[in-house]
Amino acid sequence: MKNSIIASEVADTVQVLAFDIFGTVVDWHGSIQAEVELLYPGVDGDAFANAWRIGYRPAMARVASGELGWTLIDDLHRMILDQILPDFGLNHLDEPQRQHLNGVWHRLNPWQDSVAGLTRLKRKFTITTLSNGNIGLLTNMAKRAGLPWDCVLSAEIFKAYKPDPATYLGVSKVFNLNPVQTMLVAAHHDDLEGARSCGLRTAYIERSLEFGAKHVKNVSPHPGNDLHCTSLTDLADQLGL
Amino acid sequence: MKNSIIASEVADTVQVLAFDIFGTVVDWHGSIQAEVELLYPGVDGDAFANAWRIGYRPAMARVASGELGWTLIDDLHRMILDQILPDFGLNHLDEPQRQHLNGVWHRLNPWQDSVAGLTRLKRKFTITTLSNGNIGLLTNMAKRAGLPWDCVLSAEIFKAYKPDPATYLGVSKVFNLNPVQTMLVAAHHDDLEGARSCGLRTAYIERSLEFGAKHVKNVSPHPGNDLHCTSLTDLADQLGL
Repeated sequence: MKNSIIASEVADTVQVLAFDIFGTVVDWHGSIQAEVELLYPGVDGDAFANAWRIGYRPAMARVASGELGWTLIDDLHRMILDQILPDFGLNHLDEPQRQHLNGVWHRLNPWQDSVAGLTRLKRKFTITTLSNGNIGLLTNMAKRAGLPWDCVLSAEIFKAYKPDPATYLGVSKVFNLNPVQTMLVAAHHDDLEGARSCGLRTAYIERSLEFGAKHVKNVSPHPGNDLHCTSLTDLADQLGL
Repeated sequence: MKNSIIASEVADTVQVLAFDIFGTVVDWHGSIQAEVELLYPGVDGDAFANAWRIGYRPAMARVASGELGWTLIDDLHRMILDQILPDFGLNHLDEPQRQHLNGVWHRLNPWQDSVAGLTRLKRKFTITTLSNGNIGLLTNMAKRAGLPWDCVLSAEIFKAYKPDPATYLGVSKVFNLNPVQTMLVAAHHDDLEGARSCGLRTAYIERSLEFGAKHVKNVSPHPGNDLHCTSLTDLADQLGL
């Protein structure tokens, strides 16, 4: 009951839905695991995908601290890739092979409900990415996967990574809205917490298999979020679309 | 013959088509004339639209020269609007009326061939805006008009207006391409010249009625452009789509 009242308020006030991408809209783990195991049989794709992703936060932290200048995610992914290849017996990969493998982040597959959910949500709301991924990566991904964005917003535009307030408030500013008229949709509580502290609305999406079937994620509701959804089609249901 | 050889080369090498918007994809003159004459009968909508647009280059020049700090087009449009309203007997408009009228730039109608041409071009190419208009304006316009962009690039992202090289080269950089793999599509020779001098391919679109039926524009071919097209569907024809 409480949830349906909030959903109705959100549907009345929110104009823009901003989506986290990696893990929320696309299945980075499953996509990377499948591609690595296809290209390099015998490599543990599950461990490889998680090792690559685990390197991501420390790499972004080096940029946020000023140790590294502004760096695109494509370049951070490549730095991490070069670091982990020896651990998986792949240090013999040459430059074209490394470049190709690094591009897998442009070729991630959507979760099964993503295209259908976004298509329904787009009928009423402006739907945009809000990702630490760079604009080219997000555009290539969307074109391949059929993600029907109205707009592609990225950390690259705000020259700051989430959870920097400049990113969340940047979305509201781009559309000349108050923060409360914007909602972040994400599968990560820390991302949603960042948005909430800037005054945005928040919707959590359960993605229990984000890290693979061997590492099921706790997707318990967090009382701070406005909405808790099992999928993007569930979000569309809750918002009456 | 020469044209078809160039078109074939372009189709083989270019990956991203970047579109100028005002005048090339949407009919700013006709849209503003119609809205002004509907809202304020008796006002000369043709003259009003052109007066508003004529103020645009000097306003951008004040930003480029540093006289004004970085300013969104929405705000430049508003400055010019406030200047011209007295000339049309509309100085009595209150703040909400001025804000609403300024928003007409978000409500411009596409030329008749735009949606069909873009939809065909999108099958093979990544299609993006490259406009001095701000991201919010371009996104609102696209959503209303059904313009199926893969990406929304704007002067707002590069913090420079066309014809600053940072804008044309910015598109290539976003997609990690060489300039020659990117083509600017525009109805203005000076915009195309800026792109050409940065190494981009260029396609000119005839829009003889850009300034209204009373002010027919010379749309003669310029030999420097790779392609000369009567419309966006003609561009799709020439590129074999």
